[in-house]
Amino acid sequence: MSAYRELESRFRRISALSGALGILEWDNSTMMPPGGAEARAEQLATLGVLRHELLTAPQLDELSLRAENENLDDWQRANLREMRRARLHASALPADLVERRSMAASACEMLWREAKAKRDFRLLAPKLAELLSLTREAAAAKASAFNCAPYDALLDEYEPGAREAEITPIFDDLAAFLPGFIAEALEHQGRMPEPLPLEGPFAVEQQRALGLDLMTALGFAFDRGRLDVSLHPFTGGGPDDVRITTRYETTDFFRSLMGVLHETGHALYELGLPEGWTRQPVGQSRGMVLHESQSLLIEMQVCRGDAFLGFAAPRIASAFGRSGPAYEAANLARHSRRVARGFIRVDADEATYPLHVILRFRLERAMLAGDLKVDDLPAAWNEGMREFLGVTPPDDALGCLQDIHWPSGGFGYFPTYTLGALTAAQLYAAARKADAAIEPAIAKGDFAPLLGWLRKHVHGQGSRLSTTEIVTAATGAPLSTAAFKTHLKSRYLD
Amino acid sequence: MSAYRELESRFRRISALSGALGILEWDNSTMMPPGGAEARAEQLATLGVLRHELLTAPQLDELSLRAENENLDDWQRANLREMRRARLHASALPADLVERRSMAASACEMLWREAKAKRDFRLLAPKLAELLSLTREAAAAKASAFNCAPYDALLDEYEPGAREAEITPIFDDLAAFLPGFIAEALEHQGRMPEPLPLEGPFAVEQQRALGLDLMTALGFAFDRGRLDVSLHPFTGGGPDDVRITTRYETTDFFRSLMGVLHETGHALYELGLPEGWTRQPVGQSRGMVLHESQSLLIEMQVCRGDAFLGFAAPRIASAFGRSGPAYEAANLARHSRRVARGFIRVDADEATYPLHVILRFRLERAMLAGDLKVDDLPAAWNEGMREFLGVTPPDDALGCLQDIHWPSGGFGYFPTYTLGALTAAQLYAAARKADAAIEPAIAKGDFAPLLGWLRKHVHGQGSRLSTTEIVTAATGAPLSTAAFKTHLKSRYLD
Repeated sequence: MSAYRELESRFRRISALSGALGILEWDNSTMMPPGGAEARAEQLATLGVLRHELLTAPQLDELSLRAENENLDDWQRANLREMRRARLHASALPADLVERRSMAASACEMLWREAKAKRDFRLLAPKLAELLSLTREAAAAKASAFNCAPYDALLDEYEPGAREAEITPIFDDLAAFLPGFIAEALEHQGRMPEPLPLEGPFAVEQQRALGLDLMTALGFAFDRGRLDVSLHPFTGGGPDDVRITTRYETTDFFRSLMGVLHETGHALYELGLPEGWTRQPVGQSRGMVLHESQSLLIEMQVCRGDAFLGFAAPRIASAFGRSGPAYEAANLARHSRRVARGFIRVDADEATYPLHVILRFRLERAMLAGDLKVDDLPAAWNEGMREFLGVTPPDDALGCLQDIHWPSGGFGYFPTYTLGALTAAQLYAAARKADAAIEPAIAKGDFAPLLGWLRKHVHGQGSRLSTTEIVTAATGAPLSTAAFKTHLKSRYLD
Repeated sequence: MSAYRELESRFRRISALSGALGILEWDNSTMMPPGGAEARAEQLATLGVLRHELLTAPQLDELSLRAENENLDDWQRANLREMRRARLHASALPADLVERRSMAASACEMLWREAKAKRDFRLLAPKLAELLSLTREAAAAKASAFNCAPYDALLDEYEPGAREAEITPIFDDLAAFLPGFIAEALEHQGRMPEPLPLEGPFAVEQQRALGLDLMTALGFAFDRGRLDVSLHPFTGGGPDDVRITTRYETTDFFRSLMGVLHETGHALYELGLPEGWTRQPVGQSRGMVLHESQSLLIEMQVCRGDAFLGFAAPRIASAFGRSGPAYEAANLARHSRRVARGFIRVDADEATYPLHVILRFRLERAMLAGDLKVDDLPAAWNEGMREFLGVTPPDDALGCLQDIHWPSGGFGYFPTYTLGALTAAQLYAAARKADAAIEPAIAKGDFAPLLGWLRKHVHGQGSRLSTTEIVTAATGAPLSTAAFKTHLKSRYLD
């Protein structure tokens, strides 16, 4: 067997472990009874350690050197590069640090649920400080392996190649633009009629049926995926078995529906990964920026736009047996595009959302650098909210306890949301420019032209190229704030 | 660290892999979309191989020898013995055989579903022959490691210590007794009034609520378990997270309900395993004979008996909003105790069931010994059915394709059903003799006295003793057919 083939076989086994972890994590959030938590944490930690051992096996270096000289095609060569990247990430960390980090993250996440319910950050602070310290240890180890700054090493876990130095000017640009834009948008909104209320109750079964109907229209393949319920919506599983979740409130169907469409965007990316490569590193999604770009392209660019709402409005009305002007596209559009200065990131509209992210970006860099103590986080958070959005969270549950990311060990993740939003705007503008039939088709409920373009330019590329290469090839330019600003102005000021 | 502690830590990791496998297998049968099957088979095979590697690590032998001389208490010493047993099972097989067997079983099981739907055994035969051949290879390897006959080595995978030479006389005794007894019971049944029909439809949600209600009464801990739906009912997950399944038909609630109660018996065993030991070999259930004894004790001995039906009848009536004589305990008892000569094992009553098992016991021994070719299985099956029960299956779906066991690699499993039925009768007779309050409490819906006895004598013993030791200590005698025959005569002839 060639060295390259031997590597493929080893990475196929690693992929099986990742797939198993994907389902166990999904189960954790959707199905598991509370008594299973302790055993599950051990299962996840053990599988994580075994995956780590496979990725750090000494033979991989020698196989990789030998494979370099074998006759490989483009995909195989890119696969070899991605294997090395995965190995570099894994081998930068000693096995016991991986296990301690995983166990600490599980414990911290459990505690976060309690602290959030009790609205008391002090309950969480000591465990979060412990997890931060382990994260800093991991970042330092990776920084020396990758020859980069510690924060860049964390970013790289979620978005390969992302660098703080490139993100900072983009975020500074947005931080300068958005507060003024938001004031203008709110003024403009104030001159428009108020949206007519969508009055509940909306039965959970009807909400679920509507979600399944629109997922099907968008191209979700139910023979390779599911829709379930969890406290915090997410996309899990793997490319052959994509599991998205939502939660339902009978007083409000709109939020859950938009959540389902958002996760469907993530799912379509997974379902469109290059066939035959999904169990190799090169067949994985490129990173969280492109992943978030796909969910936001579907939710924000498409589903909150007029073409989609024209198609969806009668289906929404019929799903709940309602009628009248509240269920017409124009009114649903007003509900889809409300700008408001709020406390909660996941409730934020697309104009205020980046400011929530930029705040977290700045705070996590400060915590990791040691410039901000965990105990001082609530005060710094609230000060940032006042500065960016002019609001002060009344308690920590509406402030620094709102997100699961840090308590579950996810430092360096937040920036990908806003980079994803910028990428979504840039990709969707390019898609419509490349194929003028895309929006008229959406208006008729035909998503094939859009999906075809996305599969070709994004989904089907897997990890063959870098994010910047994929975006540049698809749109003709590297990522900038231009398309996003154009989109905001056109949607909220016209 | 002492050698024993190091072994405990290694087996805790092995237990985490088993726990992960338990959830992935449950998911396979309850949640997974069909497109996930191929990736899942690889996940299961990979985790199986990794568990195998951990169990066969060369250091275990040396650690085990050193631990032998350490100061251990009874439970630790029994744990050490069970560690060696697990290791002996694993190390008897080369890793590639484990993987090939797992992959072949996954593929064969998929094909079985198709063959059964098409009622055509020939579709399955080649793959089953391949799996049989791999099973024979495994049996031979284990037989030489255990110094026993190949079939005994397979039995030992499910029921440690079980031997064909001990099962054969018990089964021969039953095979001689049952045909005559069944004729008598049918004659007796013919002189009684026909049961009043229980007329559907019975809404799935009401059936589910009734199942949950009775599971709760029996002592199922929902903070450590779930009830879901699968094609073939089973108990899965692990001791901290026990997952039972059923399937519903709106025309008949009784079968599903009895299935739920059966699986609840399995679940109570898992939930009662010795606290603090559930992630070590000694804390596992002893084997499939005791496991089946617990499901049959609950379903057959308790829930089809008068005390339970007196308690359950009004709850059943109220769950479906029904009333009248059909829903009184006496009529439900008639439904619970119908004897009939049928084709399908899982539909069989407790009197005919052992004959279905004895047929399979004889056929699988013949196949493994090479005395019966896979291609000749349908003919041999149908001949056996005529001999034992006087019926001829009209097609293979009602004949040798009905069970999942062989197509999923489970040779040597079937005998445990009937050994479990005998054990259930012997244990329940001993429990009632030891505590006269057990049955009167059940009549009032109080299962605590029974559960207390079972926890003390069976569940809480884990794998500290052998099955024979547990049964003898609990009942005063080793297993025999006496209590089962007494039970049958009292229930079906009086």
